[in-house]
Amino acid sequence: MKLSSILDTLSVPTLLLDEEKCRQNIRKMLGTAQQAGVAFRPHFKTHQSQEIGQWYKEEGVDKITVSSLQMAEYFAADGWKDITVAFPVNVREIDLINRLASDIQLNLLIENVESVKYLSDKLSHSVNAFIKIDIGYHRTGLDPQDFTTIDAILSAIEGVELLNFIGFLGHAGHSYKVRGKAAIHQVHEESLSAIRPLRTKYQDRFPQLLLSVGDTPTCSWEDQFEGVDEIRPGNFVFYDLAQWRIGACRLDQIAVALACPVVAKHPDRHQLIVYGGGVHFAKDQSMLLDGKTTYYGHLVEEGTSGWQLPNGQNYVSALSQEHGTLTVQPDIFERYEVGDMLVVLPIHSCMTANEMKEYLTLSGHRITRL
Amino acid sequence: MKLSSILDTLSVPTLLLDEEKCRQNIRKMLGTAQQAGVAFRPHFKTHQSQEIGQWYKEEGVDKITVSSLQMAEYFAADGWKDITVAFPVNVREIDLINRLASDIQLNLLIENVESVKYLSDKLSHSVNAFIKIDIGYHRTGLDPQDFTTIDAILSAIEGVELLNFIGFLGHAGHSYKVRGKAAIHQVHEESLSAIRPLRTKYQDRFPQLLLSVGDTPTCSWEDQFEGVDEIRPGNFVFYDLAQWRIGACRLDQIAVALACPVVAKHPDRHQLIVYGGGVHFAKDQSMLLDGKTTYYGHLVEEGTSGWQLPNGQNYVSALSQEHGTLTVQPDIFERYEVGDMLVVLPIHSCMTANEMKEYLTLSGHRITRL
Repeated sequence: MKLSSILDTLSVPTLLLDEEKCRQNIRKMLGTAQQAGVAFRPHFKTHQSQEIGQWYKEEGVDKITVSSLQMAEYFAADGWKDITVAFPVNVREIDLINRLASDIQLNLLIENVESVKYLSDKLSHSVNAFIKIDIGYHRTGLDPQDFTTIDAILSAIEGVELLNFIGFLGHAGHSYKVRGKAAIHQVHEESLSAIRPLRTKYQDRFPQLLLSVGDTPTCSWEDQFEGVDEIRPGNFVFYDLAQWRIGACRLDQIAVALACPVVAKHPDRHQLIVYGGGVHFAKDQSMLLDGKTTYYGHLVEEGTSGWQLPNGQNYVSALSQEHGTLTVQPDIFERYEVGDMLVVLPIHSCMTANEMKEYLTLSGHRITRL
Repeated sequence: MKLSSILDTLSVPTLLLDEEKCRQNIRKMLGTAQQAGVAFRPHFKTHQSQEIGQWYKEEGVDKITVSSLQMAEYFAADGWKDITVAFPVNVREIDLINRLASDIQLNLLIENVESVKYLSDKLSHSVNAFIKIDIGYHRTGLDPQDFTTIDAILSAIEGVELLNFIGFLGHAGHSYKVRGKAAIHQVHEESLSAIRPLRTKYQDRFPQLLLSVGDTPTCSWEDQFEGVDEIRPGNFVFYDLAQWRIGACRLDQIAVALACPVVAKHPDRHQLIVYGGGVHFAKDQSMLLDGKTTYYGHLVEEGTSGWQLPNGQNYVSALSQEHGTLTVQPDIFERYEVGDMLVVLPIHSCMTANEMKEYLTLSGHRITRL
C-alpha cells in the first residue's frame, strides 16, 4: 500500500513499520554473522514483539538476547528456548529466574561474587552464566585484566552445581558515541582486543568457553569477528537517526517512522505543531549537523526508494508531553495543513517503540509487543 | 508502613506514591484557588489515574483538564462531566469528539479557522471552544494582539451552531525555565497582563467569557489571579525535581519516587548500577547545581519528615534502556549492596509516571492509570 493511503486511515500518532526493510535488515545481519562464522544471537529489546521475532525464526535464528527477565518470559512463551538476559542479574527476581530456567536454557550475566552467593542458595534449576566484561563502554562489567575478581567469581561459580560458566560477554556501547566507518572500526578492534586475551588465559580450564560481543554500529560495518563466537546486535532491526548519524545505516534502511497529525501552524516562526510528544517519541535527542542545535527527529517524505529528506533542515525542535514542534523550511510549511498527517524518523527507535507499544505495517497490519 | 518494609517486598523498578503527600498537594492547591476566588480545573495528565481523580472529587472538584481525547474518554468513563482538552483540537479524531460531546461538557482549544471549518461540517453534538492564546511560552496559541486572526476565528465560530465560544486560554509554560520566586512572579505578572486585555476588548460582545491560565510554578507561589476565572495546574499533584529546582516545591512535597534494585557496583568510579533505565525514568534531564553536569534523578533516603538528600551529590548520571548509573559519595557507595533497593526522585514526574503506568502507595496498594 502507498504510504499516503495508510496515512489517510490514521487519526492519532502511529508508529509505522516497513516490514520489507525490517526483514531485509534481519537477513543482512544474519548474512554478516554467517559469513564471519559466528553465531547470531540478536537482541530483541528493540522490537519486543513475538510476531517480529517470528521473522527471525523464519530465517533460522534459534537463540536470542533480551535485557530483562520479563522480556525473557514473553519470548519463552512464544517458543524461544535459548535466551541470554544481557543485564547484570537482578537477584531479587529469583522466582522468575527459576521459573524460566525450568523451561528454557537461560543465560545470565554475572559481575560480582554476591550474585553468585545469592544464586547458590536459591537456584532450583540449571542456568548458564556469562561473566560480564567491560570492553570499553564503562557502563557495567569487569576490567578484562581484573583477574582477581574474575577468578573469585569463577571459583564461586564452580561451587554452585546449578550454575554453569559458559564464557565472557562484552558490549561495545561506546560505538554509539563515534562517527564514521574508521572510528567504528577502531572501537571494533579495541573491544575485540580487550576480550580475546580472556580465551587465551582461561581456555585450558574452560575449553568450551564462548566470547560474545556485538553492537549495531560495529556489526553493521565489520565482516571479521576474529576470535569471538557470537554477536548480539539489536537496533539494526529498525535502525534510526542515531545509527544514521553514527554512519551505521543508510536512511532507506530505517524501518520505523512516527506518523503525527498536524494540529497548528505558526507562520511567524515556520513551525508546525503536531500531536506527537515525549510520550510518543521518547526524549532521546541528537544534534543537527551544525553541531549546536538539539533535535528529536527529522521530517521525511516518501521518495522513490523509501524515506527522503526534503531539502533543508526540517526537524522536531521541541517535545513536551503530547506536543511536538517541527521547525521547517518555508516550502514545507506551506505544504502541510492543519488536519494533515506528517511522518518523522525517530532518533532512537528502541525508545520510540517502547513508548508506542504497537506497530502498523505499510500493508495496514497491526503488530503488538510486550 | 515504613518505606523500608515496602522496599523489602519489591523485585523490579516500582513507582512509589506517598498518598498523604499527594492528598496534601491537592488540598493546598484547591485552597489557593478558593482563596483567590478562581475556579479550580486541575490538569490530570500528570497522574492519569481514575483512582487519584477520586481524591480530587472527595475535595469537591468537579471539572478537569486533560491533554488528549483518550484521556478525556478515560475520565469521562469514571463520571467526570466537564472536561477541557488543553491541546489544539485534532480534527482527525472527530468521531471521538462527537462520542464524548454526546455524553459530557467537552471544551476544546481552537487556534485556527481551518479547525472551525472542519468542525462546522462534522460536529453532531454541542462543544465549547476556548481560543488558545500565547501568553509567553511560544509553543502554541495566538499572539494576544493578533486581533485579525482572533476575530476571524470568532466569526467562524459564530457561524457554527454546535460550537460555543467560552473564552481565552493560555499556558505560561515558560515558568518552567525560570528559577526562584521573583522570576516566577515576573512570569505570572507578564502572562496575566498578556491575556487580561482580551476581556476588556471582547466583554461587550461576550459578557460571559472566561480567562483560563495556570501552570504549577505560578500556582504554587501566587495567591492573586486578578482578572482570570480559572486555574489549571497539574504537576503539583506529585511535584518532582524539576519543580524543586524551579523553586515551586519543597523536597518533602514530592509524592512519587522510583524504587530500583541495585545490580552491580563499580568501586573504581563509585557507581551503583540499578535496574531502572530510560524506559522507567524517561529521559528528562536537569543540571546539577554546578551548572554543567547533566543528571536524571537524585538518590534519596527516608528522613524524619519525608525524603532526605544524603550529604553530597548522589545522582543518576546516565540512563540507557534498562540500566541506570548512579554516581555517589563513598559512604553511600559502601552502604548499598547488590540486591538492595534504592530510591530515586525523578526529574519530571509526568513522564516517569507515563513510563511506569502504575503506582504503589506506601501502604502497599497498587493504583492503575491510563
